[in-house]
Amino acid sequence: MSPAVVHQDVSDTYDIVIVGAGPVGLMLSTCLSRWGYRIKHIDNRPEPTATGRADGIQPRSLDLLRNMGLKSDIMAHKPARVYEVAFWDSESSKGIGRTGTWASCPNFIDARYPFTTLLHQGHIERVFINDLEKNGTSIQRPWTITGFQTRNPETSEYPVQVELEHVNGTEKQTVQAKYLFGGEGARSFIRQQLNIGFHHKDPIAHVWGVMDGVVKTDFPDIKMKCTIRSQHGSIMVIPREDNMVRLYIQIASSTDADWNPRKSATEAEVQASAKKILYPYNIEWERVEWYSVYPIGQGISERYTLDERVFLGGDACHTHSPKAGQGMNTAFLDALNLAWKIHAVESGFANRNILKTYESERKAVAESLLDFDNRYAKLFSQRPPAASEVQAASETIPDGDMDGDNDFIKTFKESCEFTSGYGVAYQANTLNWSPSHPAQSHVVQPSGTTLKSGRLLVNADVTRVVDANVVHLEQEVPLNGSFRIFLFAGDLVKNRVALRDFADNLTSAKSFYTAYTRPDITQVSHHEKHNPHSHFFTLCTIFAAKRHRIEIARDVPSVLARYRDHIYADDRWDRRVLDSVAPAHAKMGFNEEKGGVVVVRPDGYVGLVTSLVEGSGTVDALNAYFSAFCTKKFGNTAQL
Amino acid sequence: MSPAVVHQDVSDTYDIVIVGAGPVGLMLSTCLSRWGYRIKHIDNRPEPTATGRADGIQPRSLDLLRNMGLKSDIMAHKPARVYEVAFWDSESSKGIGRTGTWASCPNFIDARYPFTTLLHQGHIERVFINDLEKNGTSIQRPWTITGFQTRNPETSEYPVQVELEHVNGTEKQTVQAKYLFGGEGARSFIRQQLNIGFHHKDPIAHVWGVMDGVVKTDFPDIKMKCTIRSQHGSIMVIPREDNMVRLYIQIASSTDADWNPRKSATEAEVQASAKKILYPYNIEWERVEWYSVYPIGQGISERYTLDERVFLGGDACHTHSPKAGQGMNTAFLDALNLAWKIHAVESGFANRNILKTYESERKAVAESLLDFDNRYAKLFSQRPPAASEVQAASETIPDGDMDGDNDFIKTFKESCEFTSGYGVAYQANTLNWSPSHPAQSHVVQPSGTTLKSGRLLVNADVTRVVDANVVHLEQEVPLNGSFRIFLFAGDLVKNRVALRDFADNLTSAKSFYTAYTRPDITQVSHHEKHNPHSHFFTLCTIFAAKRHRIEIARDVPSVLARYRDHIYADDRWDRRVLDSVAPAHAKMGFNEEKGGVVVVRPDGYVGLVTSLVEGSGTVDALNAYFSAFCTKKFGNTAQL
Ligand SMILES: Cc1cc2nc3c(=O)[nH]c(=O)nc-3n(C[C@H](O)[C@H](O)[C@H](O)COP(=O)(O)OP(=O)(O)OC[C@H]3O[C@@H](n4cnc5c(N)ncnc54)[C@H](O)[C@@H]3O)c2cc1C
Ligand SMILES: Cc1cc2nc3c(=O)[nH]c(=O)nc-3n(C[C@H](O)[C@H](O)[C@H](O)COP(=O)(O)OP(=O)(O)OC[C@H]3O[C@@H](n4cnc5c(N)ncnc54)[C@H](O)[C@@H]3O)c2cc1C
Repeated sequence: MSPAVVHQDVSDTYDIVIVGAGPVGLMLSTCLSRWGYRIKHIDNRPEPTATGRADGIQPRSLDLLRNMGLKSDIMAHKPARVYEVAFWDSESSKGIGRTGTWASCPNFIDARYPFTTLLHQGHIERVFINDLEKNGTSIQRPWTITGFQTRNPETSEYPVQVELEHVNGTEKQTVQAKYLFGGEGARSFIRQQLNIGFHHKDPIAHVWGVMDGVVKTDFPDIKMKCTIRSQHGSIMVIPREDNMVRLYIQIASSTDADWNPRKSATEAEVQASAKKILYPYNIEWERVEWYSVYPIGQGISERYTLDERVFLGGDACHTHSPKAGQGMNTAFLDALNLAWKIHAVESGFANRNILKTYESERKAVAESLLDFDNRYAKLFSQRPPAASEVQAASETIPDGDMDGDNDFIKTFKESCEFTSGYGVAYQANTLNWSPSHPAQSHVVQPSGTTLKSGRLLVNADVTRVVDANVVHLEQEVPLNGSFRIFLFAGDLVKNRVALRDFADNLTSAKSFYTAYTRPDITQVSHHEKHNPHSHFFTLCTIFAAKRHRIEIARDVPSVLARYRDHIYADDRWDRRVLDSVAPAHAKMGFNEEKGGVVVVRPDGYVGLVTSLVEGSGTVDALNAYFSAFCTKKFGNTAQL
Repeated sequence: MSPAVVHQDVSDTYDIVIVGAGPVGLMLSTCLSRWGYRIKHIDNRPEPTATGRADGIQPRSLDLLRNMGLKSDIMAHKPARVYEVAFWDSESSKGIGRTGTWASCPNFIDARYPFTTLLHQGHIERVFINDLEKNGTSIQRPWTITGFQTRNPETSEYPVQVELEHVNGTEKQTVQAKYLFGGEGARSFIRQQLNIGFHHKDPIAHVWGVMDGVVKTDFPDIKMKCTIRSQHGSIMVIPREDNMVRLYIQIASSTDADWNPRKSATEAEVQASAKKILYPYNIEWERVEWYSVYPIGQGISERYTLDERVFLGGDACHTHSPKAGQGMNTAFLDALNLAWKIHAVESGFANRNILKTYESERKAVAESLLDFDNRYAKLFSQRPPAASEVQAASETIPDGDMDGDNDFIKTFKESCEFTSGYGVAYQANTLNWSPSHPAQSHVVQPSGTTLKSGRLLVNADVTRVVDANVVHLEQEVPLNGSFRIFLFAGDLVKNRVALRDFADNLTSAKSFYTAYTRPDITQVSHHEKHNPHSHFFTLCTIFAAKRHRIEIARDVPSVLARYRDHIYADDRWDRRVLDSVAPAHAKMGFNEEKGGVVVVRPDGYVGLVTSLVEGSGTVDALNAYFSAFCTKKFGNTAQL
């Protein structure tokens, strides 16, 4: 044993120590537990969130929860659903009046669930905690972190040492881990220890009172999300499960003459203020479940990690104004992004340097969210939108050309994309192809495709061939750490050679696919649906044909046919492409005869799009794409 | 106390004794428990069904389960879904080949869930049992019934005496009840005691082996429902949850030369036979979960009740060939039909004689199901359908005119309606209006409407006004024993007077609505959504207008406005009525300006359709309709 290797006690070693069991910590823990990692997960509160805090699940987050099989557990709580937002303004002394309403996720966004799901954060946390327990991870409470240190990351298997302590100081524990994750919220101890700066972004600071309860009111939009401005102040209304409603009531703003960021207000003061603002409507509280003053404004951390061993995520990295409803959703997507990358590295699939893309991808998203929030607030403070603008913004199905839109409409459309969660676009890097990516080939990013690297796969209905079930294609591969390769196979007959060539090259000794064959491949059950050959890939084949015309044994090369539950007929009708006979192909912008190939990252974002050609071109391009970040090199790269 | 009144010990009195905890008993018990009835429920088996038995939930039954809030519990088991049926036939010595496939619930049927849900009966039973327990009813097991007697039904509150006994004979109990229900399956003790005959219907008798298990096979349609005929015999394949499959293998038929209705077969014999039938495909069993020989053929009971105190339902009244997949579904609908009628009578709303409609409605349905099954089997035994016929049968959206169809296509369409559960049509009686119904008025059954008394309400999407949620209108009132009155209010402005007149007449002292005002109306919570005024009615108002144009305080008379969660905008796009701006109105066949009114029974079947007119005409017609079966008389009937 070389002297540089640190001695470790196996019983105290973990793949990861996760500090904080809020949304970010729970999502990370849930993914990694499902994939078999050994986790030490602590939180310094004795119980999960009982009341209050975040509560809005964006459409994109609901897709994600569904992909994890957790959506029905969320929906079992009968959450409120926000489809539209109403704007109210003060109309002279007569009190407030409605100035307009619009869809929170308008038609131009192609969402499966075009609404925000409102449910108390505690219920959401418990859905994750139940899942964790099924996978053998439990959260150690109330414990805190008191110190940590990374030593010899090049040579040590468990380079991170973490000091933990019961909050009452009676017990201490030192553990060794491969990673440490700080999901401890805005006042992150780990961030402070790392000396990472945190920058406040919002030029206007606010103090908000947040009150959850049951009210009796004649205000007609109490079950809608509302933004109310009156000369007595501002309120935001958020409907909730079980007849509850959340009101955000502005207590102070840095634009006030007597601005004081520590200004507070009692429950009764805030209720009195709400009554004034809502005039001419009445409001009485039957029950207040939770009341808190919430002064946290917008801000962002300088770094998300210094060494790709100790990571931060969620509120530890970025905080949002409560009105933006971004906190929990951004936390989920941080964790998702990190989880699969850690898995890819630790399972020997990807190079360690993909971990650098966690910060570059997620920090850019947080920056643009915060920037956008400011622009949006500014625009709205100038004037309320005209009805015609709202109409224009809501109805259009975008044709890629938004030039005709004015600033207001553009900003509104962007706001819808952000608040629905579909606005996230990861920039070019080794995972997201761009012209500067090492994979250079004329088959990449074929003209016509609507798919973009770094963006989510477009939704589409298809018919599964083996059982004729109508399914949501983008949901067919569960979140299990695998890359999803979608072969839009086009015409059953005309593309036969291209399909065979794809299969032949895929199974060649030098392919990315062959390189990561499961070591236990001979023992895999014939019931295995997603990973019969490799833990890292699932192959889906979609023909532009009616289901009954597809005969798997005749039409599908055996490597693809083995994924028999992932062979589909593109024969479902879609309102967005009324004239197409192969709507899924059409939505992706693929020719119905020629098809195309999409490589989707385990988190659902497109990595690479190629055409499907005869010869080795398509697999060559995939080999080059995976060579850029995998632990092995594939194909004959000179050939490209 | 008059001497004719039987003395009863209160602790042993029940509203109903239910014998048998199969689908029919459980559905009845669940409804009545939810509505507050005191139930003695016994079953002679120590446990719910562990394996085997029925497993296919029809589309219509799934609607019902959703209306009860039980669908998500069913779906949590990840059942298989059958969208299509494949037909295989023997092609000479080369073995079987596919002759065609078609949708099990084709487009011409407007179903929310156009598939059959396949799940083991035990899981389904447990969903009901869990719900029962929440409502304080538990099933006493293993207990049996040994006798019963009805005495003084006119004077006694609890006229039915029932003798119960533990199956091992150690304990006995005598209880007094208002009703006794026999849901004990095909060999019903109660039916036999009542001396009610049972007639076998099927001219061809069969013995089937039923095998549930996990197989390994290259038969491509193993995840589809299949009907396979070969010279070696017949098989039906039914996919199931958890990679399981059910095979029905014909063991004997009365058309065999050596026909013996007691013929049996071992598991191994049936497997050997399956292998021969499936040739050239292979099949091996990895696990057999359940195997049984199922000789029960089709039959029907002469009566469902003799005195409207002791009732029979489910298999006790009618048995179906297993291939028809009707047993459990028909059982559910029997129980639903009886449950709300008992509730209507016992809560003082309806006259006791509506209980006679249980037998008349449900027996006619069972008869037509059985007749149809025979016709269908006969047609198919003549020749397999041509592809063009299948196509014609599957794709058409019917325009009420099926004259162009040949016999085959007609029968096929009917079969789809029956197997989906939407074929049920109750005949005219006091509950289902017809020209011979006492309610005579020119406003009844207006020309143009597609709705028919005795048929289910047509599905439609609408937008709920208070929260902008997109909802399924037909599901908006839960199964709670209330009649559902849907006011399609047409044009917001042009119909203002008609709407006001409707509201005024509804609240007049002589109306059906006022007659059944809740005694506790002053204490009703403002959160009450469905029954703020009366336990027997929920009012829904649907405007042919965009949501944002509707202002409840301005546009909706207060009696209707009180049902604020039941006010809708008919502004959702529907594929079936592409050109309509008010698709729900259009689907019901109502004029988009003039609207119309639909009275829907608590079980979801249409009772009465009227136009919406200025003056008292519409409410007069409703008064006359309810006068026909309610305990009070309404309006000025001379006026009609
Ligand atoms: C009081 C409050 C009110 C909020 N209100 C809103 C709102 O109205 N709307 C909105 O969108 N967002 C709100 N948020 C923010 C929203 O809840 C967060 O954006 C979201 O929870 C982020 O998730 P997270 O996992 O990053 O952090 P958190 O949910 O904050 O989770 C951090 C967890 O780490 C634990 N922890 C902290 N330090 C330690 C330590 N040293 N050792 C162990 N455990 C530790 C905490 O107890 C907590 O359980 C609120 C947050 C707070 C604290
Ligand atoms: C062995 C078997 C196999 C079947 N296979 C199929 C199939 O493959 N496909 C299909 O569609 N249908 C099948 N059926 C029929 C299907 O299960 C029924 O149509 C359906 O269950 C009808 O529901 P039910 O509630 O009317 O009767 P059942 O489900 O039969 O329930 C009757 C209940 O009453 C109990 N009981 C009977 N007598 C007494 C008594 N004296 N005292 C107390 N309790 C009593 C029974 O134990 C049982 O729990 C099968 C039935 C049986 C018995």
